[in-house]
Amino acid sequence: MTEKIAYADDHFHDECGVFGVFGHAEAANLAYLGLYALQHRGQESAGIVSSDGGELHAHRAMGEVEEIFIPSVLAQLPGDLAIGHTRYSTAGDKALLNAQPIMVDCNKGKIALGHNGNLTNAAEWRRKLEHRGSIFQTNSDTEVIVHLIARSQARNLSGALGDALNQVEGAYSLLVLTPDELYAVRDPRGFRPLVLGRLAATETAGETWLVASETCAFDLLNAQYVREIEPGEMVRISKSGIESIHFAPEKPRQHCIFEHVYFARPDSTVFGKSVNASREALGRVLAREHPVEADIVVPVPDSGVPAAVGYALESGIPFHLGLIRNHYIGRTFIEPSQAIRNFGVKLKLNPVRGLIEGKRVILVDDSIVRGTTSRKIVRMVREAGAKEVHVRISCPPTISPCYYGVDTPTKEELIASSNTPEEICRYLGADSLGYVSLPALRQAVGDADGAFCTACYTGVYPTDLVQLEVREGSGNGTLGIGMRDTSGGLPQTERPVTVEREV
Amino acid sequence: MTEKIAYADDHFHDECGVFGVFGHAEAANLAYLGLYALQHRGQESAGIVSSDGGELHAHRAMGEVEEIFIPSVLAQLPGDLAIGHTRYSTAGDKALLNAQPIMVDCNKGKIALGHNGNLTNAAEWRRKLEHRGSIFQTNSDTEVIVHLIARSQARNLSGALGDALNQVEGAYSLLVLTPDELYAVRDPRGFRPLVLGRLAATETAGETWLVASETCAFDLLNAQYVREIEPGEMVRISKSGIESIHFAPEKPRQHCIFEHVYFARPDSTVFGKSVNASREALGRVLAREHPVEADIVVPVPDSGVPAAVGYALESGIPFHLGLIRNHYIGRTFIEPSQAIRNFGVKLKLNPVRGLIEGKRVILVDDSIVRGTTSRKIVRMVREAGAKEVHVRISCPPTISPCYYGVDTPTKEELIASSNTPEEICRYLGADSLGYVSLPALRQAVGDADGAFCTACYTGVYPTDLVQLEVREGSGNGTLGIGMRDTSGGLPQTERPVTVEREV
Amino acid sequence: MTEKIAYADDHFHDECGVFGVFGHAEAANLAYLGLYALQHRGQESAGIVSSDGGELHAHRAMGEVEEIFIPSVLAQLPGDLAIGHTRYSTAGDKALLNAQPIMVDCNKGKIALGHNGNLTNAAEWRRKLEHRGSIFQTNSDTEVIVHLIARSQARNLSGALGDALNQVEGAYSLLVLTPDELYAVRDPRGFRPLVLGRLAATETAGETWLVASETCAFDLLNAQYVREIEPGEMVRISKSGIESIHFAPEKPRQHCIFEHVYFARPDSTVFGKSVNASREALGRVLAREHPVEADIVVPVPDSGVPAAVGYALESGIPFHLGLIRNHYIGRTFIEPSQAIRNFGVKLKLNPVRGLIEGKRVILVDDSIVRGTTSRKIVRMVREAGAKEVHVRISCPPTISPCYYGVDTPTKEELIASSNTPEEICRYLGADSLGYVSLPALRQAVGDADGAFCTACYTGVYPTDLVQLEVREGSGNGTLGIGMRDTSGGLPQTERPVTVEREV
Amino acid sequence: MTEKIAYADDHFHDECGVFGVFGHAEAANLAYLGLYALQHRGQESAGIVSSDGGELHAHRAMGEVEEIFIPSVLAQLPGDLAIGHTRYSTAGDKALLNAQPIMVDCNKGKIALGHNGNLTNAAEWRRKLEHRGSIFQTNSDTEVIVHLIARSQARNLSGALGDALNQVEGAYSLLVLTPDELYAVRDPRGFRPLVLGRLAATETAGETWLVASETCAFDLLNAQYVREIEPGEMVRISKSGIESIHFAPEKPRQHCIFEHVYFARPDSTVFGKSVNASREALGRVLAREHPVEADIVVPVPDSGVPAAVGYALESGIPFHLGLIRNHYIGRTFIEPSQAIRNFGVKLKLNPVRGLIEGKRVILVDDSIVRGTTSRKIVRMVREAGAKEVHVRISCPPTISPCYYGVDTPTKEELIASSNTPEEICRYLGADSLGYVSLPALRQAVGDADGAFCTACYTGVYPTDLVQLEVREGSGNGTLGIGMRDTSGGLPQTERPVTVEREV
Repeated sequence: MTEKIAYADDHFHDECGVFGVFGHAEAANLAYLGLYALQHRGQESAGIVSSDGGELHAHRAMGEVEEIFIPSVLAQLPGDLAIGHTRYSTAGDKALLNAQPIMVDCNKGKIALGHNGNLTNAAEWRRKLEHRGSIFQTNSDTEVIVHLIARSQARNLSGALGDALNQVEGAYSLLVLTPDELYAVRDPRGFRPLVLGRLAATETAGETWLVASETCAFDLLNAQYVREIEPGEMVRISKSGIESIHFAPEKPRQHCIFEHVYFARPDSTVFGKSVNASREALGRVLAREHPVEADIVVPVPDSGVPAAVGYALESGIPFHLGLIRNHYIGRTFIEPSQAIRNFGVKLKLNPVRGLIEGKRVILVDDSIVRGTTSRKIVRMVREAGAKEVHVRISCPPTISPCYYGVDTPTKEELIASSNTPEEICRYLGADSLGYVSLPALRQAVGDADGAFCTACYTGVYPTDLVQLEVREGSGNGTLGIGMRDTSGGLPQTERPVTVEREV
Repeated sequence: MTEKIAYADDHFHDECGVFGVFGHAEAANLAYLGLYALQHRGQESAGIVSSDGGELHAHRAMGEVEEIFIPSVLAQLPGDLAIGHTRYSTAGDKALLNAQPIMVDCNKGKIALGHNGNLTNAAEWRRKLEHRGSIFQTNSDTEVIVHLIARSQARNLSGALGDALNQVEGAYSLLVLTPDELYAVRDPRGFRPLVLGRLAATETAGETWLVASETCAFDLLNAQYVREIEPGEMVRISKSGIESIHFAPEKPRQHCIFEHVYFARPDSTVFGKSVNASREALGRVLAREHPVEADIVVPVPDSGVPAAVGYALESGIPFHLGLIRNHYIGRTFIEPSQAIRNFGVKLKLNPVRGLIEGKRVILVDDSIVRGTTSRKIVRMVREAGAKEVHVRISCPPTISPCYYGVDTPTKEELIASSNTPEEICRYLGADSLGYVSLPALRQAVGDADGAFCTACYTGVYPTDLVQLEVREGSGNGTLGIGMRDTSGGLPQTERPVTVEREV
Repeated sequence: MTEKIAYADDHFHDECGVFGVFGHAEAANLAYLGLYALQHRGQESAGIVSSDGGELHAHRAMGEVEEIFIPSVLAQLPGDLAIGHTRYSTAGDKALLNAQPIMVDCNKGKIALGHNGNLTNAAEWRRKLEHRGSIFQTNSDTEVIVHLIARSQARNLSGALGDALNQVEGAYSLLVLTPDELYAVRDPRGFRPLVLGRLAATETAGETWLVASETCAFDLLNAQYVREIEPGEMVRISKSGIESIHFAPEKPRQHCIFEHVYFARPDSTVFGKSVNASREALGRVLAREHPVEADIVVPVPDSGVPAAVGYALESGIPFHLGLIRNHYIGRTFIEPSQAIRNFGVKLKLNPVRGLIEGKRVILVDDSIVRGTTSRKIVRMVREAGAKEVHVRISCPPTISPCYYGVDTPTKEELIASSNTPEEICRYLGADSLGYVSLPALRQAVGDADGAFCTACYTGVYPTDLVQLEVREGSGNGTLGIGMRDTSGGLPQTERPVTVEREV
Repeated sequence: MTEKIAYADDHFHDECGVFGVFGHAEAANLAYLGLYALQHRGQESAGIVSSDGGELHAHRAMGEVEEIFIPSVLAQLPGDLAIGHTRYSTAGDKALLNAQPIMVDCNKGKIALGHNGNLTNAAEWRRKLEHRGSIFQTNSDTEVIVHLIARSQARNLSGALGDALNQVEGAYSLLVLTPDELYAVRDPRGFRPLVLGRLAATETAGETWLVASETCAFDLLNAQYVREIEPGEMVRISKSGIESIHFAPEKPRQHCIFEHVYFARPDSTVFGKSVNASREALGRVLAREHPVEADIVVPVPDSGVPAAVGYALESGIPFHLGLIRNHYIGRTFIEPSQAIRNFGVKLKLNPVRGLIEGKRVILVDDSIVRGTTSRKIVRMVREAGAKEVHVRISCPPTISPCYYGVDTPTKEELIASSNTPEEICRYLGADSLGYVSLPALRQAVGDADGAFCTACYTGVYPTDLVQLEVREGSGNGTLGIGMRDTSGGLPQTERPVTVEREV
């Protein structure tokens, strides 16, 4: 497998949350609240487009949802329909340019789009469309969909949208707003979640349809969870009601397993299963697969808590909050020019010395990416007096990047792509290290029939990854990417073997 | 006792954190990091004053520490000395005016002050000083100290500061910066914490002295905790070294017990004892004083977690994170005009239905103030399917306001000031309610010799509360405030009695 | 001729200034200074795009040039090439959207465009291009050029630019920037000015080419005026030097006479002639065509000054600054809710009573548009004690709107389109009124061979004005616009007749 | 006379304008408009304090009046009384601190002050008051008045204000606002102007009293000019009407002659005389005192225009606008790093080559300060082709700084303090140079009885200038300042002698 990843543009790999509202006089307000609940899916920019039935009204900005959508801004987003988008993205000039929802006025009318996921053949399509005279305004893969819509011969938007989506590949949970319709669409493999909800009619409002990335957004609004948008389904909501269109033939399901491991909120139900239950189950299986004699179980907060609770319950070793998360940290933090040991981690975490001193500590976390942060945490816990530090990770080793909408570092940067668990354990300075095995992970999330994508743990990608010319390149200029690389699937993920540091 | 509390001005009752640096080329940067770690003590405004040896440089603003002290701002705070202040305060025009550190140029030279605590005779002194021609620029009680310094006949600042402090009453952990000195002072009763720390000399910096409200600020900087500033002690740090002055006769100690119950960070050592240990002990004692048959122990996050861990460990009932805290919520949140049930609480918390449904839940929280939030949480847990909800509070009923630096509502607003636990239990809609008893609280925080102020639980105030004329008032115009009211000390706080809801 | 003018969109009728730099290490700085000198041509938004040889860097904002281009902004515009644009535009959300230079990345590469003028068939082209799948991002007529470039079959940009420009009609003085070229183009009739300049090489910079709307921008930079860009000429400046391409067949010249009357700066040379000389000559001819016995000549500052100087010199009646212009007035001025007589004019002008009281005043201004302001000025001068007020206007009556880049009100709003000079004189409340005749105007600007467009004074438009469907309209939906309306050309502009108010 | 001027602090020497309103429902709006008309007196910061009868409401900011007082800001300044202040001040952190009106809450109640002028014994008083324990919040001399008021034994404010003012020396035109009164005070010598005006009652408002620095502010509001506030007079306006108090014995009048030469607006009446009339008279006398054969008279705009008009009329040489002032220039202008010849002046002025080329030019300006700008203008005019350049200045040589409220450079920086007119003429590169003589200046402004201060032209100061210790200084520490220096009064100002450049 080639080492150069030409596809790894910053702007093609984002995590995002989407929320849609149809039929409520305070549509933009509800969209704002929905985005607020989805902010763990991306908190660097946010946008809402509302429709008053005739015009679309947009506001997009860098920052967090509650900083952006102050009352005076929301007041300029009138109408009964709205879609919102929240997004993690790299900083810089282009960040705002690529903020969503995208909004255009084309021959199919006024359209706004909010997209969670990543198209794997976007670059190829962009090149073709530009060749034919299309002018792109953003660097986002999502804009390809817009141009395909504008060039479709279909007479109405649902037809043009189907045309466009049948030409793109990859992951998309997509909301489309027109002056009087809301479309909610999910790609045929169902990589990313997308759920339908309903607010009961009140004295002041009729029935309201909601669409969200996760059910926790419905909870905040006291709304009812109705069902998932199906893979390959386009739901069209308009004044004539709700209509389901299957725009593409069925394909094997490929739900993102990482949503359950880390990404989704524990209080959400994702792909039909409670996320918290998956995580506690992962902690329990971790205790069974990687037992160790120790005094306390300590989570790396906040995401490691459910698995640590599971581990403690299964093992009978007491759970304690031995690492305190610092106050919320913003984007503009300045580093001291004087080196402070473990500084980056200290900004986020501080050990409770009284709990840790003299103890054998089981440290439970949800994943190891580059390993640098985990190494600092282990060192910090040791400096706080721990006698032993046993690291337990509630998923298998992450060996391959995601091309379906989760921002991951390149393969080379993933420590597990080129190091054995023994080597990682030594690097972390831990006394032992245990990962959940892949079969146990599948079992914990309830994956009986292989409906989950586990490419990040196996390197086996469920779609063709497009061949790309390097834009600036010359000569043969093509780089294979991913290409159904089946050489991965490291054996240690198949059965649990706790590794220990060599003395 | 009179019901009207004339003293209850918003601006006299703040929570605050302070941090001081002496002898580091990046003094303002360190102050900023120290404030960052102390932000739980007040996150609505922050300020830093630095000294370059000749001039004082100040920046104060509304907002959170990391929003305010961006690199370009810190670059304008040069010098080796600095003090910082972070503060909770009510919104409005006067908020910035009262932001600290206060900075003046008077006959004793240039001085900056950062104050945690509250002076109980400030209003009286202000009236006197204004009568003599002093002009106040803020509404802060702290400014009284500045004017007393300026009017002191003492020849140097330490003398004038002693003069001033011997004339005021109440709680103060105070940092004073001059162009070349740093003073750290604590009132003779030691209401609020204040600790001394040290950064070892490095190649680029000599030894650095630090002062902080809590030890967690030292941890972030890898600094060493040296000792507490003693009650009645003024520590003067200058180029000639560190000097300890006892400016006032000894008085009975009155450490704020609420620091251990709620206010301080669990990873801090306060008044010589680990805060997390106190809280876990409170959870254990709660389990012993108020046992109940149930299925899960659920904390109200984040502050209820350590006590819930203690309760679970003592009772053997499993701990689960059954309430998920929402993403950090900023100051500008807009409420939907359409009523959403339990909306205020939903913004902060969401139940994990899968965990709670069909369970008997023990809900552990650190205190009940007005009762309105607790009531919403109980209702929310019940709506998520709980069969029973048993509320356990890790301190006695809060019956009286604090006049020593913790922002509390008026006596009338405190639900426990006029309601029995049975009444409160019924109001909350809980199946049972248990508070920790006062003796158990004292024991949990290690108070063998009555060195803690427990006025908020007893109504017995350790200082005279000044008689105040109502400013706009006429006639006899005096209102007794507090006045060693010993009628309080409700019996139920002396022994544990779990109360249950009447059916 | 139809009275409804469907074409009169705000965004199609702007005044603008453009400035280009090729070959200077501080290209953006020079562009900024050039825009500063051209700011009378449009001060509501401004933009600069620079090229570092590979990337284009853009900054556009609402506001004035010196507010927008602060040093930190200019520092982000690196490179040796730059184009700038300053613009008058209506307020509102779309104003920034339409700010120029426009920048796109299309199949012809990265291109930025700055346009002064107005295309008369833009709406028609936009409809066609959208039908074919093009997506427009702005409301600007200029974007049509970009899409025509992207769809051109030509292999290089100069070919594609020529293709595009041969398909549009109207007025354009256009700058186009690519990563390594600067194009300066003028429409075949030469409506708007565009001049070429040169900065001599220095020790730190080689020879630099400049392009500007007016010569006054060269003066600020100590640059040398080389020549006009010819009508129908495309000048391409690149590393290989300067190249002249005639992209369109010759057409009769149609220089905008209003540049000399009002729009250009008096210190500029426009269409080869000094603007100040034209204006003083207009004042002299006004004195000959409309003499009157009076005591003082008073200009309406600032634009009326040169003509007033000419009138005073020709007539021998003393010139005095009897109206003082107020301090510069910004965009955010608030009106008092209490009516103050003549308030709008008072904000701009105040009479010097001592000069005016008891005098017969000749008031010289450059034009009358709606008449409302002139009426207020006449009333104000009379209230300051003038015995008589004689209004002299240094051009003929303005009877028709401009479709070639000057923002004018609709025909109905132009007082002279439906009122005789006698009626206007009565409306103003003046004692007499005189306009310069059209032949005298032509002579004053040196127009021997009919090379000027005088459509605003005659209603005779030099191009076909396209037939437009009204987008929202109904019925047959077409409105004739302008259509070589030759019924105008009011006789009174042909020979000077001073009109007097009827008593 | 000593060369070191210890007193020349930036913050003690400002130019300012003040405006007061009593009895109008839109008091803050009117104050805003009044400040707008006075903005030539200081445009770097502005403030308004209004009273709603109980509370004072303040807003002060850096910037220009119309930038600061946008509708949302004015909406927060309710009430029927208001005072406003506009000010020129040096940039930097302290600028906003010193912005006026000053507002305090002291033992005399709530007071706001706006001050035009400069107190010459402020530093001495400040030292004394600080010694007694007063704490100053600003660096402004005006704050001394506030502390003297707070320390006065008088029972009411008018008494305390009189006490305070009898202890200070120097120039003050002062407005004082309380919740229900407006005071307008002028120092006993009457250095600075201050005038009383009246708005007639309307249907919606009763009679309104206005106070302003200059009458042009009344013109904007259609208000009636009533009379000057007399030197040594305190006018108190309250619900009981208008009351005149003479708080100090009469002293010889010392009206600032520079108000007529340059500072005031030409359309104002100052000290009872039209400013424009003074300036045209100065131009006429300049033509008589310094005639020269030449082709055109060219003003340095804008301030040189009236004198140039006067010169042209007296001499019969035609007036032309040969220098065009650039567009308004803001505060943030960036200089190009590449030297552009005469750049600083080019930003403000550009010559009209067609007018100047080959001509003998008389250049009329109002004053020469350092000479650097005049030198650049002369050079620029010569480069535009002038055959001869004759400089004429409409006042005598400026040889001494002002201590009464006009910001002037130090004596050493004033070119005329150490150079003869011959030397200045040579420095400027002019063909000849002529200043108005002092007797002619007195005559032109109508000063029959020596009621004007001419210290800037003579060095003879009308008040004792206080002896100041230099704060940071050493040695004996006293520096004589000004000290009735009568050695000045250069003979050439007494009689007109045109000087010519030596070849």
